[in-house]
Amino acid sequence: MIVVMKSPCSDKDIKQVLTFLENHCLTGHVSHGIERTVIGVLGAVGPSGTPGGIGNIYPALGEALEGLPGVESILRVSKPYKLASREFHPKDTVVEVSDACVRKGSVSIGNGEVVMMAGPCAVEGEKQLMKAAEAVRKEGAVILRGGAFKPSTSPYGFRGMGEEGLKLLAKARSAFGIAVITEVMTPSDVPMVCEYADILQIGTRNMQNYMLLDEVGRTRKPIVLKRGMSATIEEWLLAAEYILSQGNHNVILCERGIRTFEKATRNMMDISAIPLIKKLSHLPIIADPSQGTGRRDLVGKMALASVAAGADGLLIEVHPNPDEALKDGAQSLTIEQFRELMPQVDVVAQAIGRTLVTK
Amino acid sequence: MIVVMKSPCSDKDIKQVLTFLENHCLTGHVSHGIERTVIGVLGAVGPSGTPGGIGNIYPALGEALEGLPGVESILRVSKPYKLASREFHPKDTVVEVSDACVRKGSVSIGNGEVVMMAGPCAVEGEKQLMKAAEAVRKEGAVILRGGAFKPSTSPYGFRGMGEEGLKLLAKARSAFGIAVITEVMTPSDVPMVCEYADILQIGTRNMQNYMLLDEVGRTRKPIVLKRGMSATIEEWLLAAEYILSQGNHNVILCERGIRTFEKATRNMMDISAIPLIKKLSHLPIIADPSQGTGRRDLVGKMALASVAAGADGLLIEVHPNPDEALKDGAQSLTIEQFRELMPQVDVVAQAIGRTLVTK
Amino acid sequence: MIVVMKSPCSDKDIKQVLTFLENHCLTGHVSHGIERTVIGVLGAVGPSGTPGGIGNIYPALGEALEGLPGVESILRVSKPYKLASREFHPKDTVVEVSDACVRKGSVSIGNGEVVMMAGPCAVEGEKQLMKAAEAVRKEGAVILRGGAFKPSTSPYGFRGMGEEGLKLLAKARSAFGIAVITEVMTPSDVPMVCEYADILQIGTRNMQNYMLLDEVGRTRKPIVLKRGMSATIEEWLLAAEYILSQGNHNVILCERGIRTFEKATRNMMDISAIPLIKKLSHLPIIADPSQGTGRRDLVGKMALASVAAGADGLLIEVHPNPDEALKDGAQSLTIEQFRELMPQVDVVAQAIGRTLVTK
Amino acid sequence: MIVVMKSPCSDKDIKQVLTFLENHCLTGHVSHGIERTVIGVLGAVGPSGTPGGIGNIYPALGEALEGLPGVESILRVSKPYKLASREFHPKDTVVEVSDACVRKGSVSIGNGEVVMMAGPCAVEGEKQLMKAAEAVRKEGAVILRGGAFKPSTSPYGFRGMGEEGLKLLAKARSAFGIAVITEVMTPSDVPMVCEYADILQIGTRNMQNYMLLDEVGRTRKPIVLKRGMSATIEEWLLAAEYILSQGNHNVILCERGIRTFEKATRNMMDISAIPLIKKLSHLPIIADPSQGTGRRDLVGKMALASVAAGADGLLIEVHPNPDEALKDGAQSLTIEQFRELMPQVDVVAQAIGRTLVTK
Repeated sequence: MIVVMKSPCSDKDIKQVLTFLENHCLTGHVSHGIERTVIGVLGAVGPSGTPGGIGNIYPALGEALEGLPGVESILRVSKPYKLASREFHPKDTVVEVSDACVRKGSVSIGNGEVVMMAGPCAVEGEKQLMKAAEAVRKEGAVILRGGAFKPSTSPYGFRGMGEEGLKLLAKARSAFGIAVITEVMTPSDVPMVCEYADILQIGTRNMQNYMLLDEVGRTRKPIVLKRGMSATIEEWLLAAEYILSQGNHNVILCERGIRTFEKATRNMMDISAIPLIKKLSHLPIIADPSQGTGRRDLVGKMALASVAAGADGLLIEVHPNPDEALKDGAQSLTIEQFRELMPQVDVVAQAIGRTLVTK
Repeated sequence: MIVVMKSPCSDKDIKQVLTFLENHCLTGHVSHGIERTVIGVLGAVGPSGTPGGIGNIYPALGEALEGLPGVESILRVSKPYKLASREFHPKDTVVEVSDACVRKGSVSIGNGEVVMMAGPCAVEGEKQLMKAAEAVRKEGAVILRGGAFKPSTSPYGFRGMGEEGLKLLAKARSAFGIAVITEVMTPSDVPMVCEYADILQIGTRNMQNYMLLDEVGRTRKPIVLKRGMSATIEEWLLAAEYILSQGNHNVILCERGIRTFEKATRNMMDISAIPLIKKLSHLPIIADPSQGTGRRDLVGKMALASVAAGADGLLIEVHPNPDEALKDGAQSLTIEQFRELMPQVDVVAQAIGRTLVTK
Repeated sequence: MIVVMKSPCSDKDIKQVLTFLENHCLTGHVSHGIERTVIGVLGAVGPSGTPGGIGNIYPALGEALEGLPGVESILRVSKPYKLASREFHPKDTVVEVSDACVRKGSVSIGNGEVVMMAGPCAVEGEKQLMKAAEAVRKEGAVILRGGAFKPSTSPYGFRGMGEEGLKLLAKARSAFGIAVITEVMTPSDVPMVCEYADILQIGTRNMQNYMLLDEVGRTRKPIVLKRGMSATIEEWLLAAEYILSQGNHNVILCERGIRTFEKATRNMMDISAIPLIKKLSHLPIIADPSQGTGRRDLVGKMALASVAAGADGLLIEVHPNPDEALKDGAQSLTIEQFRELMPQVDVVAQAIGRTLVTK
Repeated sequence: MIVVMKSPCSDKDIKQVLTFLENHCLTGHVSHGIERTVIGVLGAVGPSGTPGGIGNIYPALGEALEGLPGVESILRVSKPYKLASREFHPKDTVVEVSDACVRKGSVSIGNGEVVMMAGPCAVEGEKQLMKAAEAVRKEGAVILRGGAFKPSTSPYGFRGMGEEGLKLLAKARSAFGIAVITEVMTPSDVPMVCEYADILQIGTRNMQNYMLLDEVGRTRKPIVLKRGMSATIEEWLLAAEYILSQGNHNVILCERGIRTFEKATRNMMDISAIPLIKKLSHLPIIADPSQGTGRRDLVGKMALASVAAGADGLLIEVHPNPDEALKDGAQSLTIEQFRELMPQVDVVAQAIGRTLVTK
């Protein structure tokens, strides 16, 4: 951390900063430039909470320093996340989805292959789900998506079938040999969702629902952590850090579009987040072009772009009859569209030396 | 709702839209313009869920229509919220904070007066809280703020004292005759927080935590609903609608800054949200210039601007020693700064024909 | 255009809207819904300026209507651009860069092939430019980029070599048989830049410099129109419309990243703009991953993603010694990095059935 | 400037940075922290261009450093603007509008009073302008606004009356003793606009039209520099620096709303920019609530908020018949609304110890 002093600043102000640092077992290193005085802080602190680690005191420390007289700003030179960072853990994390129902053993996410997760936005009934599950499995998807708990912007919207929906997902899993990913929205539902699902999804609105992050962190299930719709890359990795710091290392990040001024698409996919996350973190990253664009006619191209940029997988909405979907019909592919997309994904994956897993 | 067809579009596409509408007990009214065909949808549906009201089917309906062939876009002409809208409820809502501890009877929010809520960002200990409470009450604040549960971007940050903090808030309330507002972060904590607090606060990260909104909607406590950091006005009013639709009409909105590209302030206060909410809704609205700017040196001016724009109250961070604050020290006022601010707020309130309540 | 009335609204308000429309040779078509009255406007007007066309009066008309009493909002159902729209011109536009110096005849942009434009951000001197030009041509780039006039955020920054830089570009063109693209920043420079360049570039800060758009519209040179850093897709196509409406049909759009809240990248590339522009417009679109990310380590992956999404070409900064570049060194590839990228671009282009032109 | 090295980084990388600095007459000061090595750069350079000042090399320098191997990021600790900064020039700048036509001598902007600039968005004809000018002068406005050159998003929109409009402004000035502000859009128009106007306005789309900034910098006219719709505070002050560095010190900043995700208002006024600019700069700042909101019904409240936050003046659109305005009718006040607003502005100004000038 570096403390930038106002210009001009008094010796008294500098001394107050140094005393503050000493009181927190840190050392300040004053450097008088021509235009500014800056104070380097030595002795940053780590996860252990003791000096030498990043403790509880750390984020507060920066803010308290920012409030001292004579201080203009605080520059952080260390990343605030540790367990999620590639510096701390240089080797790629591979998340294993190990459910017995998956056709030929487990599915690995982050091992260099490309994994397809597909299915309806929401579970709406047995017929719809079974038809969708059969179709996406047949085309090569190895993971079935489908929401049993749905966040709806309006209280009058469809909020999902709940546990009944989870049961249908489990039934589809057995019937077609496909793993299941579904969203969990509140801490008290975590045990129930764990019973039925192979992967838990944290939705964009809950990326900073810290008690939910704690709770899924206490399980050992794979977690797909969607980026908050206005979350920076750093905040996203800090949300992953919540899960990791509870001991669950099976975290998969998912880019799903952020909020900008543009109105032509529902969200704006940040494709650059894919290679950037690969630089900053060892965690796998997948992309959701359905939520990411909100427009069926853009999903295919954005799926290919995501793979070309290095995504470890795709999360795509497919509905047997999207025009009758109770939720997000406008962005779901038909089964025919999905069938056409799969070989295109495969050929782009191969162009960059990867394979689309369809075992 | 108006369905805008692509140009050109076929009779078959138009017919499919009309059939879809009929299947949902609605009528389409086709209008052939020179450049576009549009279809007006008659028979919108309301909160009752029956035709003639906005039912569960409504938001899904628009999205499903958007997915039909030949449809370019859907234009909504009704507001998606009802209970929160001024059209539905023209008269201003006044929320009464009726706790017995408030010095001279209850505090009203939304009755044309300006109410000051002040105190530390987080409850850090008895000495700190009591000192802050005594000071802000003395200067005229009628509501004490202080977080016992704190959302922290980093898992290594300070997350609050929990129930112990709530007890200190209750103690300060008794000691100084000041009502208490504090944040609740997860549904299962609602009963406990209700026991100690006069007003529950939903923080910016939880504005779309729907199960939490449901839960506080089932109480009858006043709720301060902070705007999500990337929430549109419409999404914010829909979040209020969640609470209202559970039967709790004591909702107070709070503008606290949104996320933009600007880096000079932590958030950007949308002061125009204050008069705009007054047009669109009957609910009271207050402003939080501490979170809204993240900079102590801007809090005062933004407090005055909020009042001039019509805010019903202010939520301001005051810390007996902000430079030692465990959380958000950079944006907390000192007691002296708060003492200077109060008469300025009063004089601006009077300039627009309102009064700062300090009874 | 559809006029949405407030609820409730008076007959007098409705009548005033109808009279206003009649005064402008238009007809209003009133439709009383359960919740809202809407008025469809018939007789939209086109580029000719006469009724039946979109004349000078059109954008003003919507705003004037918005100001009438009883009017809540105006919904536009026609696109405000015509010449740029695919509806008006369904077939893809192919822009020919026909300069004699190009090695084997002209270069076509928008014909299904992928075109590489590469070179330094700024022309800094003869040695630098010739070395870069030779290298990028050798690796297969068919167009040389290089700024002679540079927009610099600071008045103390490097603002380009001016005409001397243009002469060096022309020299490199002759020497290596490569066409030249360079930026023009102000109307009075257009004739001079036309003398030396094969393609004129309008930079992001000038996307709405209307007098400059008019001026380049009066030439017949190919124009690369970069997206404004906060421009919507619609505003971008309207800027293209300025050029097209002056008679210059050789417009190539260029996605170069927009401004969002994210700080990890200089800009955020909107890859979805590529397929979206292909839907809305017949104009070719290329991508600039150097400006689009501001980070050398992301350029390669974003180039591949752009091609996978359907870009007709790439604009990439390559510097013989990027660490000594006077401008934008952080985002320029080295010659070695560019050499590695070209075959990767080729293989992704082929994966989607296109070819990278390197003739 | 501080160079933050990657972790880990090699001695070779550190040495390369130090050599690079030496080659540019600067000194590096290495500091090995526990987690990071940082290198402080001594000998920053200033406007003179010599070592010891910020020369041409400076912005390039940071970017070139960012591109060196082993460098993670560059932290700037000095502000990139000098002439615009309060550190450089602690005393408030007062801009004198000294035209002889102003009723009782000159108007001062930035001297602690509040100045009202009002009039139509665009000059549409003699009758309209004279009526508006007479009315706003009568109510106390001392400066008349009105666009003769109008930036229009669509090429089919109204682009202003040009020189004929300027002549009408000059006529209104003589007739009613009111100074005139009007927009100039391109460098070649500057001499003509200077002939007729007392204050030149640079519009939001031209905030980074550097050749235009240079040109108005070479005059000595007061310049109102509107904030670019996606400009940071720093970029805005750098645009001011362009004008100041040409020798024209009569710069007035104008907050007019920025672009965000919110759709309910045309732009979002950043009221916090007002006190923030007062901290960072000595230049006066005014506010434009008409452009800032795009909604007539919000203009009044936002005018009051701006004054409460410390604005030195207001720029407000008033049209004798806004519903017939050719441009921006939706945001113009009627004369009656303006008449009601003036005493409200006065009383809020007085509440904060200022006066509305209406001499």
